Amino acid sequence: MRRHAIYPGTFDPVTNGHVDIVQRCRPLFDQVTVAVAINQSKTPLFTLDERMDMLRETFAGMDRVEVASFEGLLVEYARAKGARAIIRGLRAVSDFEFELQMALMNRRLAGEIETVFLMPSEEYTYLSSSIVKAVSRAGGDVAALVPAGVLKRLSEKAQR
Amino acid sequence: MRRHAIYPGTFDPVTNGHVDIVQRCRPLFDQVTVAVAINQSKTPLFTLDERMDMLRETFAGMDRVEVASFEGLLVEYARAKGARAIIRGLRAVSDFEFELQMALMNRRLAGEIETVFLMPSEEYTYLSSSIVKAVSRAGGDVAALVPAGVLKRLSEKAQR
Amino acid sequence: MRRHAIYPGTFDPVTNGHVDIVQRCRPLFDQVTVAVAINQSKTPLFTLDERMDMLRETFAGMDRVEVASFEGLLVEYARAKGARAIIRGLRAVSDFEFELQMALMNRRLAGEIETVFLMPSEEYTYLSSSIVKAVSRAGGDVAALVPAGVLKRLSEKAQR
Amino acid sequence: MRRHAIYPGTFDPVTNGHVDIVQRCRPLFDQVTVAVAINQSKTPLFTLDERMDMLRETFAGMDRVEVASFEGLLVEYARAKGARAIIRGLRAVSDFEFELQMALMNRRLAGEIETVFLMPSEEYTYLSSSIVKAVSRAGGDVAALVPAGVLKRLSEKAQR
Amino acid sequence: MRRHAIYPGTFDPVTNGHVDIVQRCRPLFDQVTVAVAINQSKTPLFTLDERMDMLRETFAGMDRVEVASFEGLLVEYARAKGARAIIRGLRAVSDFEFELQMALMNRRLAGEIETVFLMPSEEYTYLSSSIVKAVSRAGGDVAALVPAGVLKRLSEKAQR
Amino acid sequence: MRRHAIYPGTFDPVTNGHVDIVQRCRPLFDQVTVAVAINQSKTPLFTLDERMDMLRETFAGMDRVEVASFEGLLVEYARAKGARAIIRGLRAVSDFEFELQMALMNRRLAGEIETVFLMPSEEYTYLSSSIVKAVSRAGGDVAALVPAGVLKRLSEKAQR
Repeated sequence: MRRHAIYPGTFDPVTNGHVDIVQRCRPLFDQVTVAVAINQSKTPLFTLDERMDMLRETFAGMDRVEVASFEGLLVEYARAKGARAIIRGLRAVSDFEFELQMALMNRRLAGEIETVFLMPSEEYTYLSSSIVKAVSRAGGDVAALVPAGVLKRLSEKAQR
Repeated sequence: MRRHAIYPGTFDPVTNGHVDIVQRCRPLFDQVTVAVAINQSKTPLFTLDERMDMLRETFAGMDRVEVASFEGLLVEYARAKGARAIIRGLRAVSDFEFELQMALMNRRLAGEIETVFLMPSEEYTYLSSSIVKAVSRAGGDVAALVPAGVLKRLSEKAQR
Repeated sequence: MRRHAIYPGTFDPVTNGHVDIVQRCRPLFDQVTVAVAINQSKTPLFTLDERMDMLRETFAGMDRVEVASFEGLLVEYARAKGARAIIRGLRAVSDFEFELQMALMNRRLAGEIETVFLMPSEEYTYLSSSIVKAVSRAGGDVAALVPAGVLKRLSEKAQR
Repeated sequence: MRRHAIYPGTFDPVTNGHVDIVQRCRPLFDQVTVAVAINQSKTPLFTLDERMDMLRETFAGMDRVEVASFEGLLVEYARAKGARAIIRGLRAVSDFEFELQMALMNRRLAGEIETVFLMPSEEYTYLSSSIVKAVSRAGGDVAALVPAGVLKRLSEKAQR
Repeated sequence: MRRHAIYPGTFDPVTNGHVDIVQRCRPLFDQVTVAVAINQSKTPLFTLDERMDMLRETFAGMDRVEVASFEGLLVEYARAKGARAIIRGLRAVSDFEFELQMALMNRRLAGEIETVFLMPSEEYTYLSSSIVKAVSRAGGDVAALVPAGVLKRLSEKAQR
Repeated sequence: MRRHAIYPGTFDPVTNGHVDIVQRCRPLFDQVTVAVAINQSKTPLFTLDERMDMLRETFAGMDRVEVASFEGLLVEYARAKGARAIIRGLRAVSDFEFELQMALMNRRLAGEIETVFLMPSEEYTYLSSSIVKAVSRAGGDVAALVPAGVLKRLSEKAQR
């Protein structure tokens, strides 16, 4: 019986905090799918293709980790993949409540899939894709906060 | 001396969590007005007429409960109606702070009207109109979360 | 149909924050019982008799407010009194969670009795019996925080 | 490679909330050890033997779940057992911060063991051993909140 | 060695809560700069010039307080000014987490500049520029919440 | 005009988190007094003399930092010393509310003394004297969490 976990998100762009969570997942599961949620009502900085590319580069050397995307209900996607867990990182209290709300709704929709919360490393406690974009746009240095490939693309976006 | 309470909201759409709060209000007050706040700067999924219709259907058989709408300051509306209480449901910590902020401002504007907080049933703790719309839009089943009339209208919206 | 509310607490001692909540209750209910919970496992600063005396003095001139004490389950006491509401003041987030826990347990034990939360005046947001006792013991002036009769008794305790 | 998780606690006594978490763990791990922390500075209602007995009765029919006790550092115990995860239930915001503190300290002491947070069923969100004991002591009915064997022992304690 | 603090914000418009924080800063620092952050992606109610004018009027008589604006990274601006502290008011838990996130990011970008949190007066705990604008737009009286010059301009905006 | 700040606490024992806050204070004030609060109702692990000794050792080489103790009201002590600020570290939401409560009470007792909140380094966010004592008692290594002199005394206590 293989245990498969889905780590869903917008990943606009992937940060070192996301990488940290994936690394913590690996000893707990046989397979981890990093899954980009396609959300028509949001306008991300990076296109779906760009986000997938950055994720693929980031997790290229990481065994048993794959990158994918999905549309519609997360739990339907998880079911179709045969996953039994959804992974979420818990950083702050404000996250916590939103995450519980989503987890309870997902449990109602698919009771057999469990949401599993992991705690990122302390140094990433307050890191988010939004803050990375805001600092980068204002000309700040985010080299310590994102994978190398993401840094390059962020500065390309800034130059346009 | 009749005691009248206003239960204000956007109700876009009404959920079973709202219905639960109204039912908890009824033994405490002589009259409960479910009042749709008209807010020009928001773009709801349902028109004001649709929201009023769904509320009227939902509370049709419920004695001493009326449905109305108002524009402008809630406390001015409450005063005009002769209400002495504004009802709010308390679900999560993030709600709590926003609700206290509104309640303090309302008290400053109309000290004689008290904001009364009630706790929804556990099963609706994490239910909101937003999450209902998000799940419904993604094709999920929300039959357990909204009145029957709302369910029908949600699926009509989805089909368009 | 008379509406009766119970405002339970330890009241060791009663503060201006408690008085504020009772005054906010009065327009909402026909009768308010301020009920001292007798808890054998706590060692209060003031005896039950002292606490009851201070409450009686404090609410002496307040119509439709009575002072009482009870032992055992709050909801059983509320039922025996024919009350339909339990009143609680909400100050801070930490309160909020504890209060929800108690309210959910009480609802499970007696579903017909509703817990009603009121917000104290801003100036009492961070006032508690504990902080009053701590400041008084250290020689600080708490005259603005408790009724006059309580102030006198607090200084008598301090002198012993 | 077997995946083993430790679910530590005081279990004074075990509640249906704990049982719910253990059941959620089982599909995620090959082995779950429910481990009673022996803490000399606390004075529990039930002796260690009583708590172990109640846990053994409760989890008797549950495959791949064992009951044990440990003294000293949790992470040393987890290491000695070859576990790679510590399981914690997340209920409220106040829990959340304490749990993060413990998890960060445990990570510092044993970086290879991950703390995994699961969300109990909504109906147990506000359930704790303390509240069960308080209600039981006051004569309230806790039959829906604890396993049958625990209910019997709680009423025996109450009669003494 | 002169100690200089920056108090950054959008100030759309300045409220009595902001004034309260500036007054609390003055005994702690030799110089306080109230600095309007220019943010192209937000659409404020008042133009930059209007916000600067209102701030200048408000702090006209206040010694050692200057009004300025900046674009780009706050910490770069603070460095250029030779400031050693960034001042932030702390009101509610939801603020608190966002503020910590910003402060940690700023510390990473400029470790020599400290973020200093001050607590506004109780009466302004739940005051924000947003709530002032919402109440004013709905026709409510905000005279007790903003400086006189701001009140006049708010009503001019409302009339348009 | 010299600016003097008091950093009060129990310091049972001082941790690297406390040291971090003192270091952040130094560029902001001319003088910092680390002040041990003598509290008769608590039973600390270390005597007042031991705590003072550890603080003196810890801050020996730090210019403009002195160690002292006080009994009674903190604000009276601060007044007697001519201090204009009380320093507090802010770690978590649960701290935050307790700290605001104390700060508001202190402001009421001595309006001219401001409470100033600083944020410890991320790595100390969840560090407290209590957790250090608990881990040390259970045989865990706390060398990275306390000054060297404290580590030695903690292990002496453990051996007794």
